[in-house]
Amino acid sequence: MNLLLLEQTDIVDDHATISDLRRLKHIQETLALNIGDRIKIGVRGGLKGTAQVAALDAGSVSFANLVLDTPPPAKIPLTLVLALPRPIALRRMIMDIVTLGVEHLILLNSNRVEKSYWQSQVFGELENLVLLGLEQAGGTMPPMITLQKRFKPFVEDELPALTAGKVAIVAHPYATESAPLGLTTPTLLVVGAEGGFIPYEIDLLEQAGCRSVSLGQRILRTETAVPVLLGRVKG
Amino acid sequence: MNLLLLEQTDIVDDHATISDLRRLKHIQETLALNIGDRIKIGVRGGLKGTAQVAALDAGSVSFANLVLDTPPPAKIPLTLVLALPRPIALRRMIMDIVTLGVEHLILLNSNRVEKSYWQSQVFGELENLVLLGLEQAGGTMPPMITLQKRFKPFVEDELPALTAGKVAIVAHPYATESAPLGLTTPTLLVVGAEGGFIPYEIDLLEQAGCRSVSLGQRILRTETAVPVLLGRVKG
Repeated sequence: MNLLLLEQTDIVDDHATISDLRRLKHIQETLALNIGDRIKIGVRGGLKGTAQVAALDAGSVSFANLVLDTPPPAKIPLTLVLALPRPIALRRMIMDIVTLGVEHLILLNSNRVEKSYWQSQVFGELENLVLLGLEQAGGTMPPMITLQKRFKPFVEDELPALTAGKVAIVAHPYATESAPLGLTTPTLLVVGAEGGFIPYEIDLLEQAGCRSVSLGQRILRTETAVPVLLGRVKG
Repeated sequence: MNLLLLEQTDIVDDHATISDLRRLKHIQETLALNIGDRIKIGVRGGLKGTAQVAALDAGSVSFANLVLDTPPPAKIPLTLVLALPRPIALRRMIMDIVTLGVEHLILLNSNRVEKSYWQSQVFGELENLVLLGLEQAGGTMPPMITLQKRFKPFVEDELPALTAGKVAIVAHPYATESAPLGLTTPTLLVVGAEGGFIPYEIDLLEQAGCRSVSLGQRILRTETAVPVLLGRVKG
């Protein structure tokens, strides 16, 4: 936790109180803060700054003298369209995607996505995973996350508007063009499930404005390919 | 498993036999191969190609008609010096490091590495983790892996020779220079533990020829920073 993320509703004037076990434990055990100590804070969707511990007991910690004077790191102008991964991989990937500052994450169905993944309880944990990612990054601006359970209608009807004005690429192991480096323009990046997209899906994605690019001969797990691609295309 | 990795000792003339449970299970259950089917193979440290299933039972699978005619993907000319991560993170990271084709991995002690990590049983699993990484990548050339348990003697006495003729960089959140993009020259990349290197260590690394570079304002977990950096610096 590189900053304590507060909700707007935790704050009254320049005071704040938290009472959830996870954050209490971090403040009292990991950081071992005492009354008078200052801690880095951020407000979800807002500014960063510091606060001073005013009172703490087993059930709550109160802060006073909130100073919120620093803009959070900006999100990167990147939309990631990701074929829904296995829930265990998605949990880890959400944190990477949030810490790296992706603006918009679209989780998409595709031929090689197992239908059962859409019933996973990970969808109930998304908000908490985003919180962990923001606390890790020291950020306050969560990505927008949308679910698209039907591949063809999304790619045919909605993707062309999303790719307009952006560099739009789909990671495809059999492409001859290499993934671009250091883009400073808005970007849309499409990444498939384990096994990639089927040729029909690649065709539809290309028709919607995406260029197929490759990361080379090596076959990467999706959870490796995503941070590798984000590190590569980010300006 | 994107290729079946054989040891030189598995092969006699153009036949090979395997009998370990993990590979048997993959061939008989996941791939459900039958006699006559061909499978992609590679020989550790050697060529790639295909083989034909000649016989299979509960205890072994034999292959005939081995064709080994394809060079494996080359390793990338990159040495990764990594402060020893938590064992659970190291397990995941080894696979990324191998699938991405790092030439030489040096696991290094540093001030923020917990001493107990050096006693972890993960060191007994390294060879198997490398195997899994090669099978994922479809590669046959494992990285060299070396352990350096003393920071100062390594950085002062050995690192200058390793950085000579290379672009040498250390990931440091407080650096003002951004991490370079798309290097085609041999590279040495140093990455710290959670919490980074202490200022004294950064000084020694800089004296040994490393430039401090940053990935931006966001604070990444080591296991995210490594694939992000590899994706970014790779040509």
